[in-house]
Amino acid sequence: MSLVIIGSVAFDAIETPFGKTDKIVGGAGTFASLAASYLYNDVKLIGVVGGDFGEENLNILRSRKIDIEGVQVKENEKSFFWSGKYHNDMNSRDTLVTELNVLGSFDPIVPDSYQGSKYVLLANLSPDVQLKTLERLKTKPKLVVMDTMNFWMDVAMPDLKKVLKRVDVLTINDEEARQLSGEYALVRAAEKILAMGPKYLIIKKGEHGALLFGNGKIFSAPALPLADVFDPTGAGDTFAGGFIGHLANIGTVNFNNMKNAVIFGSALASFCVEKFGTERLQELNKRDISRRIARLATLSRFDISG
Amino acid sequence: MSLVIIGSVAFDAIETPFGKTDKIVGGAGTFASLAASYLYNDVKLIGVVGGDFGEENLNILRSRKIDIEGVQVKENEKSFFWSGKYHNDMNSRDTLVTELNVLGSFDPIVPDSYQGSKYVLLANLSPDVQLKTLERLKTKPKLVVMDTMNFWMDVAMPDLKKVLKRVDVLTINDEEARQLSGEYALVRAAEKILAMGPKYLIIKKGEHGALLFGNGKIFSAPALPLADVFDPTGAGDTFAGGFIGHLANIGTVNFNNMKNAVIFGSALASFCVEKFGTERLQELNKRDISRRIARLATLSRFDISG
Repeated sequence: MSLVIIGSVAFDAIETPFGKTDKIVGGAGTFASLAASYLYNDVKLIGVVGGDFGEENLNILRSRKIDIEGVQVKENEKSFFWSGKYHNDMNSRDTLVTELNVLGSFDPIVPDSYQGSKYVLLANLSPDVQLKTLERLKTKPKLVVMDTMNFWMDVAMPDLKKVLKRVDVLTINDEEARQLSGEYALVRAAEKILAMGPKYLIIKKGEHGALLFGNGKIFSAPALPLADVFDPTGAGDTFAGGFIGHLANIGTVNFNNMKNAVIFGSALASFCVEKFGTERLQELNKRDISRRIARLATLSRFDISG
Repeated sequence: MSLVIIGSVAFDAIETPFGKTDKIVGGAGTFASLAASYLYNDVKLIGVVGGDFGEENLNILRSRKIDIEGVQVKENEKSFFWSGKYHNDMNSRDTLVTELNVLGSFDPIVPDSYQGSKYVLLANLSPDVQLKTLERLKTKPKLVVMDTMNFWMDVAMPDLKKVLKRVDVLTINDEEARQLSGEYALVRAAEKILAMGPKYLIIKKGEHGALLFGNGKIFSAPALPLADVFDPTGAGDTFAGGFIGHLANIGTVNFNNMKNAVIFGSALASFCVEKFGTERLQELNKRDISRRIARLATLSRFDISG
């Protein structure tokens, strides 16, 4: 019943109105697996790093009991590196540096011990690599969730559409949903995207929460109103990890459980943005998460009778 | 226990990607009182029109049993006229024409039969006129709700701040909350605005729903995901009318009832945008509204146990 996550394991350097970091640990696979590790105890990661990544950074994953047998270490190469600067509103950012390094030639290896996994998260990564990973799984998973971003829509749309046909859930943000569908109204965008393959679609709207579409139903999830968003990097990856982590933990995939999974994803993401990089995701406990879930429930609950 | 609404009663000419109108009935007071009339049966309107407005347009209000004794008719003058064009995303618009006409010298009259009203909505209008209206009420209302917009923040901030000190609830949109407070994060904006006078603040976020702040609590209301927003004109006014209409109907002002009032406001606003101008607000019935409330409840309900 393992949960397999494939995604980048990387270094980021981030500048926000609150401060600036040197190279710190980042990557979609890192954020997603850390988030999932709080909700499910059998998380297996696939990725690739260079010799510069170092044992101490791999230990961040090991200390959360994440299986990293599938993380290749290319001793003589460098890890993927991304550097970005957030604008004052924290909703937009400029990419300053992207060095693909080991990701440029990434050929994902699925260890034998990962075979038979029921839950798979294709975290944000080249659609080509996402597809290869799926093809290397010998048994069909119970649930495949795909996260992606506008960058891949710009440069690899045909591959992205191939992956879409093979996944159960797609998570993207509102602008990406508009780009992928060519529709402005999110209801219409969802209709078109669901016709491309996935049975469920989650549209992440940042401070405005998220929408879950599927089975002819819609669920609107609130976001916790935050006084400070310290660093938004990884929030979407964290959301995806929390989402599938909850479903793997519950073990039954239906619309009601997916609604709750969206709430877990939102809760984890709300922690992620409180500190730089993965810092906050290294220090949580179950009680922190339960409390935040309770706040999200209180925030949006109303009861109209008559 | 009457509900008094003061606001513009006017003509609009609207262009959206879906079509274009000649002069049709509009105005904040019109939208708000029509909305409130579905929830409460003693709605009294204060406003001013020119001789061009005509009996047939006044009959739109009368047919919803709205008391228009407080609507002055200046036979030899012209009604307020606004013309605007919405962009393709329907979230931004250009004002093409604003002719103040009768509104330029509007001196609100509060008829004797309006005195003693418990609920007052200061719909979007010059803060100076909103203040005059409050001063002409001989008894202090139980609840005063104020709606306003960025225009008044640009040209009449000192007056607007005077009104703010005397109202219980302020309703504005997210950009206006940022402008009024100078804070980007809505939680921080809300703190600052609540320190300016109102006990409660509602931040309207259009397709993203609304946030209610007050009593140290926050409520996040969903918006109905709509495939087509035909004409957004009046949606905010309609929201305010639905909000106070529900509270007047319930007769008890507390945070729980306010949450439900936000949902009623959202439901009414979701009808408003389905057709041009006030058209949809002239043809509703209680059952339509109940169904939409039920949809909003289903949309955002989740139940996490454990």
